[in-house]
Amino acid sequence: MKKKLKELAEFVGGTVAGDGEVEISGVASIDDAETGQITFIANPKYLRKLTETRASAIIVSNKVTAADRPLICTVDPQLAFTKILTLFFAKPYQPKGIDPHAWISPSVQFGKDITIYPYVYIGDRCRIEDRVILYPGVCVGEDSVIGEDSVLHPNVTLYSGSIIGKKVILHSGVVIGADGFGYVKDGKKNVKIPQVGKVIIEDDVEVGANSTIDRAALGATIIRRGVKIDNLVQVAHGVEIGEDSIIVAQVGIAGSTKIGKNVILAGQVGVIDHLEIGDNVMVGPQSGVGQNLPPNQIFTGTPVIPHRDYLRVATTFPKLPEMRRTLTDIENRMRKIEERLSIKEKEK
Amino acid sequence: MKKKLKELAEFVGGTVAGDGEVEISGVASIDDAETGQITFIANPKYLRKLTETRASAIIVSNKVTAADRPLICTVDPQLAFTKILTLFFAKPYQPKGIDPHAWISPSVQFGKDITIYPYVYIGDRCRIEDRVILYPGVCVGEDSVIGEDSVLHPNVTLYSGSIIGKKVILHSGVVIGADGFGYVKDGKKNVKIPQVGKVIIEDDVEVGANSTIDRAALGATIIRRGVKIDNLVQVAHGVEIGEDSIIVAQVGIAGSTKIGKNVILAGQVGVIDHLEIGDNVMVGPQSGVGQNLPPNQIFTGTPVIPHRDYLRVATTFPKLPEMRRTLTDIENRMRKIEERLSIKEKEK
Amino acid sequence: MKKKLKELAEFVGGTVAGDGEVEISGVASIDDAETGQITFIANPKYLRKLTETRASAIIVSNKVTAADRPLICTVDPQLAFTKILTLFFAKPYQPKGIDPHAWISPSVQFGKDITIYPYVYIGDRCRIEDRVILYPGVCVGEDSVIGEDSVLHPNVTLYSGSIIGKKVILHSGVVIGADGFGYVKDGKKNVKIPQVGKVIIEDDVEVGANSTIDRAALGATIIRRGVKIDNLVQVAHGVEIGEDSIIVAQVGIAGSTKIGKNVILAGQVGVIDHLEIGDNVMVGPQSGVGQNLPPNQIFTGTPVIPHRDYLRVATTFPKLPEMRRTLTDIENRMRKIEERLSIKEKEK
Repeated sequence: MKKKLKELAEFVGGTVAGDGEVEISGVASIDDAETGQITFIANPKYLRKLTETRASAIIVSNKVTAADRPLICTVDPQLAFTKILTLFFAKPYQPKGIDPHAWISPSVQFGKDITIYPYVYIGDRCRIEDRVILYPGVCVGEDSVIGEDSVLHPNVTLYSGSIIGKKVILHSGVVIGADGFGYVKDGKKNVKIPQVGKVIIEDDVEVGANSTIDRAALGATIIRRGVKIDNLVQVAHGVEIGEDSIIVAQVGIAGSTKIGKNVILAGQVGVIDHLEIGDNVMVGPQSGVGQNLPPNQIFTGTPVIPHRDYLRVATTFPKLPEMRRTLTDIENRMRKIEERLSIKEKEK
Repeated sequence: MKKKLKELAEFVGGTVAGDGEVEISGVASIDDAETGQITFIANPKYLRKLTETRASAIIVSNKVTAADRPLICTVDPQLAFTKILTLFFAKPYQPKGIDPHAWISPSVQFGKDITIYPYVYIGDRCRIEDRVILYPGVCVGEDSVIGEDSVLHPNVTLYSGSIIGKKVILHSGVVIGADGFGYVKDGKKNVKIPQVGKVIIEDDVEVGANSTIDRAALGATIIRRGVKIDNLVQVAHGVEIGEDSIIVAQVGIAGSTKIGKNVILAGQVGVIDHLEIGDNVMVGPQSGVGQNLPPNQIFTGTPVIPHRDYLRVATTFPKLPEMRRTLTDIENRMRKIEERLSIKEKEK
Repeated sequence: MKKKLKELAEFVGGTVAGDGEVEISGVASIDDAETGQITFIANPKYLRKLTETRASAIIVSNKVTAADRPLICTVDPQLAFTKILTLFFAKPYQPKGIDPHAWISPSVQFGKDITIYPYVYIGDRCRIEDRVILYPGVCVGEDSVIGEDSVLHPNVTLYSGSIIGKKVILHSGVVIGADGFGYVKDGKKNVKIPQVGKVIIEDDVEVGANSTIDRAALGATIIRRGVKIDNLVQVAHGVEIGEDSIIVAQVGIAGSTKIGKNVILAGQVGVIDHLEIGDNVMVGPQSGVGQNLPPNQIFTGTPVIPHRDYLRVATTFPKLPEMRRTLTDIENRMRKIEERLSIKEKEK
């Protein structure tokens, strides 16, 4: 595919600075781009690379108005680049039908233009909607639903009764609907609490490789529209994650916790059970959340505190041994002063 | 299924307060319960919901003796509820036999009433005992044993020589018996230490989705009877976990460490190698265990300290910047006092 | 297999102390070894076990020159033991060919002496080189390459375009080449950034069970020769890990970070995105790396500081509540002294 720069500018709603007739045949990063390719600079600190790159055109912010190379100037260079990437790389979907080496219950209902690869298993009474793609080794438990245009990559497992929305992407090894982790002691023995709820994943959700989302004990674990979950994330039974939230790799969310909308949990964060995390909250990496968090704030640390406070605390950590020595020193000097002034123990 | 309340009370060893003739046809949480359903309240702080719920009956502790609705009063409401849940949801097991789309070595020995789904692979000389269920995509390496009534969910892998006890549940994506992580330097190169041991999982163990339990270098990694392991947990080579212990999601236990009986490791805890953790120890979430822990205590923190101490330390963290400022202030004031008293450097 | 002790000593480049004619028929740990077996002691603190073990011979360091049992004395007892283990346990490779229950695109190119188990899927235009072993449930996406002598254990997934070197071992559930976690906000919505790069894994790499290595957004995620990665590790898009580095279980490395050569990241370490970690760096368990790290040093903590400093900081943590009390006490005493000396507020 080839596009003129002015066509791309129009496509992303930007303006051309320089020669709009330049032909673009590909996209690449600023360091790897070659003649004929377009790249982008989102962070102003990389603007010096404008003169170094071999790209034929660069997408920049509106603050840049000219360079010795053709530009697309736009409000959000990364968003514009993403749209152009999608334009260049999106392949038209070609349904492959149902491979004869898949095992499919006779009671499964299919939409149209499905792709089912070999070694897929689909249990009784499932509904697989239009243009769904199930890669090799996917196992769909009975009574599950997979909405239109969703893609389940190789070796994904849905336990029975899982409800998957439209345009959902589940990456390899994702496990949806395994039993929540619930036991009650009967003497010394751990008695399993039957996990009879389910998992509901709404539209436009993406779940990264080998992440796990457990079914609720009762009711449902719910991942709302537009949530994006990275790899190796644990979502326990009864959790609800609000719309458009971002859950980064290796986060763990314990049972029945409600995460608000548009929340960001950075990598390796842990959140204990039965909490409420407000809308638009951000939690820094490796933090431990042990209490409800009000909306619209940034938190970091174990246990979490407001991020601004955390920064001050974190810079104090390395000073602790010195502070301790100073404290001992001061105590000694104070004793000396008290002696000098004949201040006695009971007076202190 | 329908049961009278008095029948359920007898089943769980509780007593009825109110109308024991009420018919119960289902179970639900306190918030979702409808007429005809039974629910429970374990935590006294939710007792106010007694009047709000639409449930036809509620299981409560013996301390509650009456309400405007029929009750089952019992020592442990959650245990009683669990028993009733199990009663309502347990389905009689219907063996499905061995699907012709499974690949099974001729040397495998089977017990009776087996269920093997399509795309299961069972290697040479395995023994699969009575009523075992192997879901699609399960791979059982040669010379493995799976005990009576055990269930391996989709895409579980057992490496060769794995020994699985009775009534064991392995959730999807669990990997048992992969090589332990052992190398020795030969110059700059990491030379692999052959991992020639195995994994033994005793009866009544449950392992959560995508958890990994490595084979020992020599000897065995052992998970004792009744241990419950959550999702995405790492158990390294040569670890032993004692009876009835609970290992919460994303915990990592390094090589050769021995965990006692009835231990609880909360989510995201890390334990280094070659340690001994005593019986009945509890470790709080995200803690880092770098030393042996004596039995019967609660620990938290990185590195762990007794939990009571940790609480005090954790509340001090946010005060650190203020403490540092105070310290500087005090030093200055002290210098002033010393000047006033003509205390000289060498006297301090 | 049986070997005389003197043969084994020669094989590992060590010297015999005692009877070199002893016949060795197996290997075991110091505690489990029986007559006829050889064991080793690497750590001098276990030398007392020299007299307790039932082993017929022990591999020790050159500092030990005699015992009441035959010895192999060598520079590196663990390396010598590893070589002998490999000698006793290595089985000659017997190719099994391609099982008819595997699904293989007609355009796949095979080397010789391949082993492909049932329920393997290999997409279009892949190249599978000599002596590769693909276990059940492995899925190889189109346009991938797997180099000579590599082994993919059950249920491994390679997304399209993955390049795997020679003598690579991927353990069960490993996912190579899933989409990196990249979105750009378009209003409130998270728009997916197409991940059009790939993953390159060089020779002699081993990746532990259920670890995930994402494809780059553009360009490649690269795991260099000899890197060893443990279980449940997350390697994000665009990361590069230098030769011979060791990444322990549950580590997470965020996007575009470059890890040097011969680095060790201990268990559960998190590294944020776009960093550079120097050669020969070691990072202690559970640490959080938020800045570039210079080479040849050890770091620990969240955020990381030099390990030596960390040890002092960590021992100060438990003293914090006491330090705080002391500080309050000192403030009070100082106020008293100031009163006595009639030092007024403004003088302080």
